[in-house]
Amino acid sequence: MPSRPRIYLAGPDVFLPDALAIGARKKALCARYGFEGLFPLDETAAADPGGLPLDRVIFRSCVAMLRRADLGIVHLTPFRGPSADPGTVFELGMLLGLGKPVFGYTNLATDLIERVQRAEPVTRAADSRDWIDGDGLTVEDFGNADNLMIDAALAEQGHPIVRIAAPADRFRALAGFERCLQQAAAQFRLNA
Amino acid sequence: MPSRPRIYLAGPDVFLPDALAIGARKKALCARYGFEGLFPLDETAAADPGGLPLDRVIFRSCVAMLRRADLGIVHLTPFRGPSADPGTVFELGMLLGLGKPVFGYTNLATDLIERVQRAEPVTRAADSRDWIDGDGLTVEDFGNADNLMIDAALAEQGHPIVRIAAPADRFRALAGFERCLQQAAAQFRLNA
Repeated sequence: MPSRPRIYLAGPDVFLPDALAIGARKKALCARYGFEGLFPLDETAAADPGGLPLDRVIFRSCVAMLRRADLGIVHLTPFRGPSADPGTVFELGMLLGLGKPVFGYTNLATDLIERVQRAEPVTRAADSRDWIDGDGLTVEDFGNADNLMIDAALAEQGHPIVRIAAPADRFRALAGFERCLQQAAAQFRLNA
Repeated sequence: MPSRPRIYLAGPDVFLPDALAIGARKKALCARYGFEGLFPLDETAAADPGGLPLDRVIFRSCVAMLRRADLGIVHLTPFRGPSADPGTVFELGMLLGLGKPVFGYTNLATDLIERVQRAEPVTRAADSRDWIDGDGLTVEDFGNADNLMIDAALAEQGHPIVRIAAPADRFRALAGFERCLQQAAAQFRLNA
């Protein structure tokens, strides 16, 4: 049997108390669609050379998995603010730099601009189309789910970020993840 | 004269009302240290093929500049929450994936954990070393300025994120930026 394409599973899932269970569910879904899932926490212990601080061990382990992956699925649900988890965004960028296809989902359906407006005073000068936040900085208003670099990175590959509204279960809901698997399976010509 | 190494200037600076002036100051400092600065907004207009939405034009322009750059300096001052601007974090990841050296600075000296604790209730179970946020997610506590992927990406290259406390002028202060230029000049064996 040929080896299955490997998917790096990026997301704030690693911060959940049941992270390993979520990772197991994601990997089972990957297998159902013909892929192998690589969950960030899986190889941390094995990567420890001894004597290195844990954060550096985790970083090296994740980077090795990113390099080994054939593609990525990034979980972009907003995290401690209006935007996605920065660790996940870093990994999205790294996968792009490595030339690997990336698929992404968020479990909030809202635009970035709506979430910023809800979080702080956002104003617009009468003679301007630009929204300005409390620090005087422009707020993007392109109808995107997040910063344009995130949305465009996925849209330019032909599969815009999947938005599924599941706010109450936003860190665990997997419908958007499964939609990404379907997109990836179509691109990799695999049959579920 | 040999061409000067090109630095991609990532940061939330692009959202400032005086973004172009800040970009000009950064490029002048780059020149003083023997580099050429590439500011994200500089080439957007020239990159417009016509008929493409502005966000996609900006993305393509930035990606082309990231590929052309020899190194990056990323401005990681926290932005709309406890972490750095996600566009900048994406670009940090992309530069890493492209194998280019990256230097970084923040104008807040605090650890990530301190900022999360200030923003929301963070608790610790009596039998655990882990901090838990209001959503039940673990908060990293490695003494880092931001998510470990960001700090470690720089530290692993031998130049940890430069932290300079300039909270009142945090989106414009350039002392940390200049320190990054000095690090880069030393690595590229240039004389200011």
